[in-house]
Amino acid sequence: STDSERLWQSLMELAKLGATPKGGVNRQALTDLDRQARDLFIAWCRAEGCSIRVDSIGNIFARRMGATPSTPVVMTGSHLDTQPTGGKYDGCYGVMAGLEVIRTLNQHDIQTQSAVEVVAWTNEEGCRFPPCMMGSGVFTGQLSEHEMLHQTDAEGISVSSALDAIGYRGSDELERNNIKAYFECHIEQGPILEDQATTIGVVVGALGQKWFDLTLTGRESHAGPTPMALRKDAMLGAAEVTQAINAIALRYQPHGRGTVGAMQLHPGSRNVIPGEVKMTIDLRHFDADILARMSSELRQAIEDSSQRHGLTAELTPAADFAPEHFADSCVNAVRASAEHLGISHLDIVSGAGHDAIFMGRIAPAGMIFVPCENGISHNESENATAEDLHAGCNVLLYSILEQAGL
Amino acid sequence: STDSERLWQSLMELAKLGATPKGGVNRQALTDLDRQARDLFIAWCRAEGCSIRVDSIGNIFARRMGATPSTPVVMTGSHLDTQPTGGKYDGCYGVMAGLEVIRTLNQHDIQTQSAVEVVAWTNEEGCRFPPCMMGSGVFTGQLSEHEMLHQTDAEGISVSSALDAIGYRGSDELERNNIKAYFECHIEQGPILEDQATTIGVVVGALGQKWFDLTLTGRESHAGPTPMALRKDAMLGAAEVTQAINAIALRYQPHGRGTVGAMQLHPGSRNVIPGEVKMTIDLRHFDADILARMSSELRQAIEDSSQRHGLTAELTPAADFAPEHFADSCVNAVRASAEHLGISHLDIVSGAGHDAIFMGRIAPAGMIFVPCENGISHNESENATAEDLHAGCNVLLYSILEQAGL
Ligand SMILES: NC(=O)NCCC(=O)O
Ligand SMILES: NC(=O)NCCC(=O)O
Repeated sequence: STDSERLWQSLMELAKLGATPKGGVNRQALTDLDRQARDLFIAWCRAEGCSIRVDSIGNIFARRMGATPSTPVVMTGSHLDTQPTGGKYDGCYGVMAGLEVIRTLNQHDIQTQSAVEVVAWTNEEGCRFPPCMMGSGVFTGQLSEHEMLHQTDAEGISVSSALDAIGYRGSDELERNNIKAYFECHIEQGPILEDQATTIGVVVGALGQKWFDLTLTGRESHAGPTPMALRKDAMLGAAEVTQAINAIALRYQPHGRGTVGAMQLHPGSRNVIPGEVKMTIDLRHFDADILARMSSELRQAIEDSSQRHGLTAELTPAADFAPEHFADSCVNAVRASAEHLGISHLDIVSGAGHDAIFMGRIAPAGMIFVPCENGISHNESENATAEDLHAGCNVLLYSILEQAGL
Repeated sequence: STDSERLWQSLMELAKLGATPKGGVNRQALTDLDRQARDLFIAWCRAEGCSIRVDSIGNIFARRMGATPSTPVVMTGSHLDTQPTGGKYDGCYGVMAGLEVIRTLNQHDIQTQSAVEVVAWTNEEGCRFPPCMMGSGVFTGQLSEHEMLHQTDAEGISVSSALDAIGYRGSDELERNNIKAYFECHIEQGPILEDQATTIGVVVGALGQKWFDLTLTGRESHAGPTPMALRKDAMLGAAEVTQAINAIALRYQPHGRGTVGAMQLHPGSRNVIPGEVKMTIDLRHFDADILARMSSELRQAIEDSSQRHGLTAELTPAADFAPEHFADSCVNAVRASAEHLGISHLDIVSGAGHDAIFMGRIAPAGMIFVPCENGISHNESENATAEDLHAGCNVLLYSILEQAGL
């Protein structure tokens, strides 16, 4: 069994770097605070005898040698960067759980066949430098290294110069073709485990995502003298499309999701009929065909609404991720480990994007979810219990052992 | 008949003060540009032999003596201030039409029984210093002079010191109890006259207005991992309430209006379910009872929606104006004048607030609307034809003559 206290202490130590008054963490990617977290992580790994490599996008790989050097590596990890108003667990838990597994293996002198490698991916959050999951995206060849190095933050600083500034632009060449399994522990970031009073989510895959930007254009006019019949009110279209998105998602349960998270009305004055509304749309589903159907239903709803209200519509894709079905080998390892340890578990689909999803494109991958309070993350009030974090770490240990071999 | 060319030239002269590159005017209340417009207006009135008085809120009264000093005065006017991206006609037309009537009376040596007085009301727009219709509100006792003098703009400058700065804090005491009639020419600011190919709107009154601020609070959570069934999406409530407002207004045609002009989503991120939505609501109707019913239907719709989506709602009144029914004497004078002149006309209800509405609370009042292109105002592209403006001015001349007596 892993050491609950040691895991907790490491998480709390890490959370000091960028700690906010409200109990959260602000440690955005490639800032000096991120450097401090990376330095600390490397120091802890070196203390466990791990060899450290850093690749060109700043991903850190800490390897504990296996008995048979030629055997494919078993990897685990997550990310050390946070949202501006982030919490202590999102990302850090996955990295610290990996470190705790290595500490446990060392403590009990356990020799595995495969090497075990803990990775801290660069810039998973994407809040300073879009897009999210940048490090794992580059590592797995899903994102272009060249393009990613040239991405800039709001102040015009590039990823490339930010990596240089904190001394984390590495030059180690990593093998991508010799990976036995990748596991990632993560807080659920949703309410399902808590709702079902279950400790472990055996993540079988992740929802595909289609993001869009929609602009509806009507006619700006005075709210008083313009009769209802002579209006082209863009907000009425936006309201209908918002409800249509909800209806579409509800039609494809349990995996359908549809969200309007941001909306701007122009001119945005209380006695002017909005002549233009810009809104974001986030559709998700576990089945690629259904996700495609959801987006064509969205297009139809936009067309109908536009026609009804005399509007023109412009729909632009903003992101497109295929659903991910994790490899049976990894999913079964996680489920069997929870079973073996007598920890309550249920199969779950990740609603959010994670580094494990990119890893799943090039290797068998799996994830272990633990509950977070009220399903809240990306928030300073993000919370999880030491018991649940420990349970997830134990499931990780057994999953890694099963794959790495003794 | 009034002089179309002279009216047009005066309007164009005035429009130079604060002219914008896009052909509009930015001449906000109590700025130096407003002072220049006031000075010009006074110079023109003095040239016509008018006596000038300025009251404590800066309203300017230019009087042409009548034959019988004791006879109640016939007033006309509007405002010289504009929106930041305003047009050439909103307000200015009413003041210049009044001046053109006086010029015409002088030119033809017409002696009226009553004095004829042209007024330029201070700060009708309310965009620099809220609220709108400040000058007429103070003059008619609908707004507190003391409070209005202490209203401040975005830079903290008070109305009182802005009046001093431009030299327009007057000390003339005006009579409010001896007014025979008040007429105001104005562009319609709506599409009805244009839609009906009619030149004159005989304004029989104005819609009552009830403005509200609504805050809907749900639960902010991640758009991916939060299943539809476990959401409290404030935006779904906002979409339903928006549609309910539209339905309520449609139920009470032709005079019902319902508009959501501004909305803010919090946190406003594309993959976060909005935990809070703030929106504005503008309800209007010509019948006070129906307007009250509309607002109780609004409350019911908000309650239903909140319950359906697990939200809490806070509805705060932001403005409340009773409908105004103009005096028959004035409405009939306008209609008869259009009829007499053979100009096409229809009875119309003003959807917007105007100085004439406050004047209607203390004296017989009426308004003359002329079409504006596409019903657009509060916009640099605001437009009206010289012919229509001239027709409205002639209707004003005859209406004034009918009330002032020869
Ligand atoms: N884990 C996570 O918050 N990913 C962000 C991208 C998403 O919305 O799924
Ligand atoms: N005339 C005018 O634009 N008034 C502003 C107040 C309103 O919305 O009616």
